[in-house]
Amino acid sequence: MKIEILRLNHRISRDKRVSSHVGLTARAFGASKLYYSGQKDSNMEESIKKIVDKFGGPFEIKYCDNEIKLIKEKKKEDFVIVHLTVYGKDFKEFKNKLDNNILIIVGGEKVEPEFYELSDYNLSVGNQPHSEIAALGIFLYDLFGCKTKFNDAKVEIIGMERGKLIKSLK
Amino acid sequence: MKIEILRLNHRISRDKRVSSHVGLTARAFGASKLYYSGQKDSNMEESIKKIVDKFGGPFEIKYCDNEIKLIKEKKKEDFVIVHLTVYGKDFKEFKNKLDNNILIIVGGEKVEPEFYELSDYNLSVGNQPHSEIAALGIFLYDLFGCKTKFNDAKVEIIGMERGKLIKSLK
Repeated sequence: MKIEILRLNHRISRDKRVSSHVGLTARAFGASKLYYSGQKDSNMEESIKKIVDKFGGPFEIKYCDNEIKLIKEKKKEDFVIVHLTVYGKDFKEFKNKLDNNILIIVGGEKVEPEFYELSDYNLSVGNQPHSEIAALGIFLYDLFGCKTKFNDAKVEIIGMERGKLIKSLK
Repeated sequence: MKIEILRLNHRISRDKRVSSHVGLTARAFGASKLYYSGQKDSNMEESIKKIVDKFGGPFEIKYCDNEIKLIKEKKKEDFVIVHLTVYGKDFKEFKNKLDNNILIIVGGEKVEPEFYELSDYNLSVGNQPHSEIAALGIFLYDLFGCKTKFNDAKVEIIGMERGKLIKSLK
């Protein structure tokens, strides 16, 4: 089972940290790839690659200049397309339908109607406005839990009652 | 049971949207107050107040110029102090200890050792670097679920399979 994310309409000035958080959250809860559209942002790409290099993968980030084409390709590859949106149906009702490869679409400020149409499921994590990062995190956590095995990690954080412990693995 | 959040060290240029997401996530999953320290940011305050005005509360945002004093006051009021940090113990192990009022500390870039010391629990949502927004969302969702009742909401979103439905309540 593959989990991949498509983050729509990234804008460097406004979304720099938000899209990074989307990527890191995706990685931490089991996704293996982040596509993003909008403005190409090599700083954001680099900041995510640094984390992957240090804490392990697999996790890839890739710029996408044609979202519709990507979604149609993924459909041909038997991915289920889930669009996370505050306007969607409660994701918990659809959990049992999500046992295939999944492409999760995470919106930007405005999402064109075409994405609602193309998606197999438009799903919400609560119908209150909050955050695409929280929605993605809760969705992945609830379905798959925290990912615990990462390949080629150089370090690992050991949870402590107080303070910080980073264990070197190489 | 009251849930309140303290977001440390807000910086206007860097954290504008991240702190807003923290606030909106807090509201959507049951918190009633966001304190934030660092730079005072009336734009962020206004953007959160607009959401509360439209979608309901109670939810308050308040600037805090002395975090340590606030934490000590909350301790006197019998709040349990939870610091969410990637370096902490798995939050699930401590769920049964969290049935009191809770102040949840959400860090900025660097968190001083004093906050680790003062907190009753330093807890992580996975020991992988991701996002304070995702961590807060997952923590609140896992403990309390989505909040469904808001007071004085002017509108309500009705989850749909396709498209958007906003119901006016007034």
